[in-house]
Amino acid sequence: MGEPRIVIIGGVAAGPKTAARARRLAPNADITIIEKDRYISYAGCGMPFYLAGSVREFGQLFATAYGVARDEQYFLREKGVKVLTGHEAVEIDRSGKEVVARNLSTGEESRLPYDKLVIATGSSPIVPPIGGIGLKGVFRLNHPEDALRIKDYLENVSEAVVIGAGLIGMEAADALREKNVFATVVEMKDQILPGVLDRDMAAVLAARLEEQGLEFRLGQKVVRIEGDEQGGVAAVVTDQERLDAEMVIVAVGVRPNVELARKAGLKIGQTGAIEVNQHLQTSDPDIYAVGDCVENLHLVSGRKVYIPLATYANRQGRVAGDNVTGRKSVFKGVLGTSVLKVLNWNVGRTGLGQQQAEELGYRVITVVNSAHDRTHYHPAHGLVLMKMIVDENTRKILGAQAIGPGDAVKRIDVAATAIHFGAAVDDLPDLDLGYSPPFSSPIDLVQHTANIVRNKAENLAPSITAEEMKAKLDRGDDFVIVDVRTPQQFGAKHIEDGRVMLVTLGDIRERIDEIPRDKEIVLLCAMGVRSYEALRILHGAGFRDIKYMEGGLQAWPYEMD
Amino acid sequence: MGEPRIVIIGGVAAGPKTAARARRLAPNADITIIEKDRYISYAGCGMPFYLAGSVREFGQLFATAYGVARDEQYFLREKGVKVLTGHEAVEIDRSGKEVVARNLSTGEESRLPYDKLVIATGSSPIVPPIGGIGLKGVFRLNHPEDALRIKDYLENVSEAVVIGAGLIGMEAADALREKNVFATVVEMKDQILPGVLDRDMAAVLAARLEEQGLEFRLGQKVVRIEGDEQGGVAAVVTDQERLDAEMVIVAVGVRPNVELARKAGLKIGQTGAIEVNQHLQTSDPDIYAVGDCVENLHLVSGRKVYIPLATYANRQGRVAGDNVTGRKSVFKGVLGTSVLKVLNWNVGRTGLGQQQAEELGYRVITVVNSAHDRTHYHPAHGLVLMKMIVDENTRKILGAQAIGPGDAVKRIDVAATAIHFGAAVDDLPDLDLGYSPPFSSPIDLVQHTANIVRNKAENLAPSITAEEMKAKLDRGDDFVIVDVRTPQQFGAKHIEDGRVMLVTLGDIRERIDEIPRDKEIVLLCAMGVRSYEALRILHGAGFRDIKYMEGGLQAWPYEMD
Repeated sequence: MGEPRIVIIGGVAAGPKTAARARRLAPNADITIIEKDRYISYAGCGMPFYLAGSVREFGQLFATAYGVARDEQYFLREKGVKVLTGHEAVEIDRSGKEVVARNLSTGEESRLPYDKLVIATGSSPIVPPIGGIGLKGVFRLNHPEDALRIKDYLENVSEAVVIGAGLIGMEAADALREKNVFATVVEMKDQILPGVLDRDMAAVLAARLEEQGLEFRLGQKVVRIEGDEQGGVAAVVTDQERLDAEMVIVAVGVRPNVELARKAGLKIGQTGAIEVNQHLQTSDPDIYAVGDCVENLHLVSGRKVYIPLATYANRQGRVAGDNVTGRKSVFKGVLGTSVLKVLNWNVGRTGLGQQQAEELGYRVITVVNSAHDRTHYHPAHGLVLMKMIVDENTRKILGAQAIGPGDAVKRIDVAATAIHFGAAVDDLPDLDLGYSPPFSSPIDLVQHTANIVRNKAENLAPSITAEEMKAKLDRGDDFVIVDVRTPQQFGAKHIEDGRVMLVTLGDIRERIDEIPRDKEIVLLCAMGVRSYEALRILHGAGFRDIKYMEGGLQAWPYEMD
Repeated sequence: MGEPRIVIIGGVAAGPKTAARARRLAPNADITIIEKDRYISYAGCGMPFYLAGSVREFGQLFATAYGVARDEQYFLREKGVKVLTGHEAVEIDRSGKEVVARNLSTGEESRLPYDKLVIATGSSPIVPPIGGIGLKGVFRLNHPEDALRIKDYLENVSEAVVIGAGLIGMEAADALREKNVFATVVEMKDQILPGVLDRDMAAVLAARLEEQGLEFRLGQKVVRIEGDEQGGVAAVVTDQERLDAEMVIVAVGVRPNVELARKAGLKIGQTGAIEVNQHLQTSDPDIYAVGDCVENLHLVSGRKVYIPLATYANRQGRVAGDNVTGRKSVFKGVLGTSVLKVLNWNVGRTGLGQQQAEELGYRVITVVNSAHDRTHYHPAHGLVLMKMIVDENTRKILGAQAIGPGDAVKRIDVAATAIHFGAAVDDLPDLDLGYSPPFSSPIDLVQHTANIVRNKAENLAPSITAEEMKAKLDRGDDFVIVDVRTPQQFGAKHIEDGRVMLVTLGDIRERIDEIPRDKEIVLLCAMGVRSYEALRILHGAGFRDIKYMEGGLQAWPYEMD
């Protein structure tokens, strides 16, 4: 038997990674990548940063860390991999084990025999079926040339609309702000980052970003884009309003490129992406599929999901590279961990969201915790709001979300690692995480959050969310909010309502008789720590209809005076 | 039965935490803290940052995040806890269940009855038995007043010596540099941070810190401190040299304060610290002990260790607070996770070090990996060197260390979490860690490091460490180093030796005949990625006596031209 012929369709992320790993394992294999584009192995995730200007040179998105361009020559010389750019795979002949590739400049077709085939055809941006999508100044941000075009166009733009508040939409909005373009983000769902954050977390993030100049139009459906006389974009019209726009970035998601696989009779999953087993094999054992064109197993829910992320593409590439050269590596599945930076806020999630978990039938305990990412006296400390979603029956952590100017992402990585190993909420406080003032606090906020869940589960810390308290206020409920902060803090900002009273924590024991015993009491502070302390004091004094507001005013996305 | 009387001896970290948790669970318990000092509940770990000036006000180390001083009044009013400062617990009457406390100003003794007693007596700095330790200008850094005194003295100092290159010594040296004081650190062991880093990692860190102006004298024993005519310090004399010093900070470690416990007949462990069970009970079930005065179970080695860290003090305080009020909480043990920042380098470790593991009888595989903490095109990217120590038999991760200007500490937290759950090295690449260019790379460096271990275990990546290669060079071994970087990189800096040849990775296939087949070959690059790639190419071409140097030149602590 000679060395295997490995053909890989797709040259962006998963494909080249598969090729590189396969080459290291099989030095004499014949490895060919077919890519219909002229760019290969580029840093798609870097485009928003190129737009924002933090990545200075377009070429950086195509270069190795040591400055060599990742082009056909690079793949040939450093990796020993042939790359056919400008070639489209138009057919897979499974019985003949050949791929038909068409040279897109000449139209010429050639047949590439394979022993193992890897489909890495990626995804394509969804184009919403609305008028005006073809106007000058309407862009998407999925391809390096999109970034080039937007960067060029941006120079003369002062206001823009982003359609879609998902990961790419938010990163695009961030880049626009960075370039001093006034940006409004329109989202059909009633929250930003619907695939990443629960609604409560998204509301806090949106409020903080709006304070910094981003604008959101949530729960609005774009019905058309309007142009001016020159054929340029002039406005985005939603079902509720008309937004002036000199530029529009459409970022409403992607769908997997599965046509080739479908035509070849390979099994497509219920998510619409290619179905693969743990070895990343399709329904044809000699054909693998990786990256944005495949669906994945969600390790918490056990369901198949379509979550196309660059990290999966790369990690799957390594697994496929193993398997096409005779190993038996597995890609177990995903937790849907997603992180992003938008303005000065770090955002992350892993595992299931609250609503997702509830829809799957879990009875959950959730908490939102406001905490500093490091000791409060360290000048670099920043706020993090962390939400944890725990299965009430098994006490297993189902998911976690974190947002804030502080280091939210480290905590998401810790949570993702813990969830990977099936951690219960009670395991987190036992973790031996690194503590030093520049990095964390003696009990890290991820452990603190877990402790709050445990307190809540034991009914030591009955709580109410910001959203629930807002609803009570708006409904006119007869209850009392006891704000236990210092008078200085209260004076600076508080909820203006007749039902709010100020009793500073240090005074609460001696002023306890001022607090009505015949009414529902909600305790409130800045971050939820003092209000919990106050709750325990009131409980000790016989109060029973008491709650504290989770996360304190840091988790309050509504108006204050 | 009435509400329990809880007496806590020690008011710095573990004691107050125990009191606070106990209070929340038992609103009517009688809780008293005895503290011989006048300061309580202070941020001991913050002292170096106060010295360095990043913590501006001394009072910040004694205040809550919301600006209230954590003094006796605070504990009484907010926590309902009595604090007797300036009182020393001089005796525990176990049969009478009373603590004898002496008022240090009046000499008066009182007896405090307890139902549950918690010993949180902490640790004391080791004073080396050398002459001159009492000279003016010789300090330690273990108490807030030390920090005040040093800060004051510092104003007129331009050169100082730190004795001890442990955590506190290094943080002190960092603070001195921050204040533009020339600092030399003397360490008896032949490496810096002996309790934190393996020798190879410490060598790289020391080299990088020396490039920035810190000086180290390793393997030198201080024999005396010399004074001038005014009784001020003038020099530190080691067994090898005399170092001028206008100021000296002695930081050679701490020992647990166990006299009171020993006198009371409580069991002291082999480490010299108080022995406790998982519930933090001493040999007397009504007496608990927490924090710097207790020993802990190391969760990897299964041995008792004395590793006094603030995070353990705080987490144990919560557990003890549970148990003295009738719960059954456990503190499982530790991994010895330690992190610190020194100059612009982040440093961390968790689990066992290589030498420790080997002494315990493990057969280990280790690697040192140089990697960027985020995508290399992101302007904030920084280098991290990560070392992983894996049990060859079980493939379990025994320990990890990371250093670098990049975010090393996040990776230590991920490793610590994984080790907590008994992770094998093969589990790490399956983790769904958050990827976005500002935070990480598509395959995070902790996963990349694990993959290198796996490659090494499969003999795909035979390697040599920087230390081993230096020894080969120094010995005059007949071998060839093939540096596979670009000519530009080579020109900027390389190992100057006749045995080094430059063959850029992209040229290696066509220049392969220039590489001698009859000699041992070591492949070298900047970070270990290209040299591994080159190794696979040579292997494919039939070379067998080949290795690559782990971590590349980023892991090379020796001279280059």
